[in-house]
Amino acid sequence: MTPDDVTPNGRATGRTRLERQLAFIVEADRLKTVLRRTTLCDGSRRENSAEHSWHLALMAMVFGQEAAGVDAGRVVRMVLVHDLVEIDAGDTFAYDVVGNEDRELREQRAAERIFGLLPPDQHAEFRALWDEFEAQATPESRLAVALDRLQPLLNNDVSGGGSWREHGITRAQVLRRMAPIERGLPGLWSSVLAIVERNCALGYIRPDDVTPSR
Amino acid sequence: MTPDDVTPNGRATGRTRLERQLAFIVEADRLKTVLRRTTLCDGSRRENSAEHSWHLALMAMVFGQEAAGVDAGRVVRMVLVHDLVEIDAGDTFAYDVVGNEDRELREQRAAERIFGLLPPDQHAEFRALWDEFEAQATPESRLAVALDRLQPLLNNDVSGGGSWREHGITRAQVLRRMAPIERGLPGLWSSVLAIVERNCALGYIRPDDVTPSR
Repeated sequence: MTPDDVTPNGRATGRTRLERQLAFIVEADRLKTVLRRTTLCDGSRRENSAEHSWHLALMAMVFGQEAAGVDAGRVVRMVLVHDLVEIDAGDTFAYDVVGNEDRELREQRAAERIFGLLPPDQHAEFRALWDEFEAQATPESRLAVALDRLQPLLNNDVSGGGSWREHGITRAQVLRRMAPIERGLPGLWSSVLAIVERNCALGYIRPDDVTPSR
Repeated sequence: MTPDDVTPNGRATGRTRLERQLAFIVEADRLKTVLRRTTLCDGSRRENSAEHSWHLALMAMVFGQEAAGVDAGRVVRMVLVHDLVEIDAGDTFAYDVVGNEDRELREQRAAERIFGLLPPDQHAEFRALWDEFEAQATPESRLAVALDRLQPLLNNDVSGGGSWREHGITRAQVLRRMAPIERGLPGLWSSVLAIVERNCALGYIRPDDVTPSR
């Protein structure tokens, strides 16, 4: 029996290292079935969390180098795993107040189960990336979350308002949601503001002085 | 005008560095609409090349460390960009002889256009990753292509034969297609052979002695 046949709690699993890795890889496939509210740029359908994660990783390659003192490779790895918990916990819409109340607990349990499929050393490594993303205490995690906010902004902008329009989201809500970009990708902040104001002018983002319907 | 407003040929583009990066990121979204022959593990639908690329990147994180002397981060970056040419060139089914005849030319043109959206330094960097994947001359590219073969094998196995069954693929065709795994991920080769033989026994992969219907 190799050490990988034992869980961190010392419980024997009867699985080899390779079997654990393959089980994790097959389980990860389910992220392709988790739908987000954002659509593709062409507006043809809602995007799923797996292709969204790929898009963020590509963006991390493009913008990771621009940020001084940031380990771009770590940002790439972080965004690749950051949404895996949604396999169990589902995607919680950013503007859903009730759904976000117990999001943290649901996602903690999901992280334990899903990363726990891996051999112990990789369980610890992948879990550390996810914890770092959630804690928002490092330059890498702040860049990762900025990309996670920028991508739906671009898709909504290109697709003619997308989920903002469909769900009647206000300017204040969008600006609050986009705030991490100012910290994580300051060079893009003025472009973000220009996109928000353009979509307000087009009526795709609701003005703040309208009383919310719920 | 910054140097990024000039193409490698010295032609002025009138676009800032940031505008070029955003244009590339928005264009990349189209990879989510390119369908592959392989289905998701649950068999519910065909997968697209963007979510496939994410899956490979995750696999590169899992198996990249196991391979001595391999830069796992480079493998991750390589698989993230390796299918972008399909935005123009489409996905060519591995077992499609005719479609593979002019695949190289179509993909070269696509690489020029799509990576050429980026600022010149990033154009060169992304293009080099794609060229390296295609040339198969480095340990990183051999691992990347092994993952690109292993992922549909796993999905076909879990989904009950998948594209092998749908298209009547033979054992010899599958083994030829999977051969790069023996070189790029030798530790997995016996598992690959076991999966192939199991799917032959189940009738999901055609035996070699049957005359092809086309």
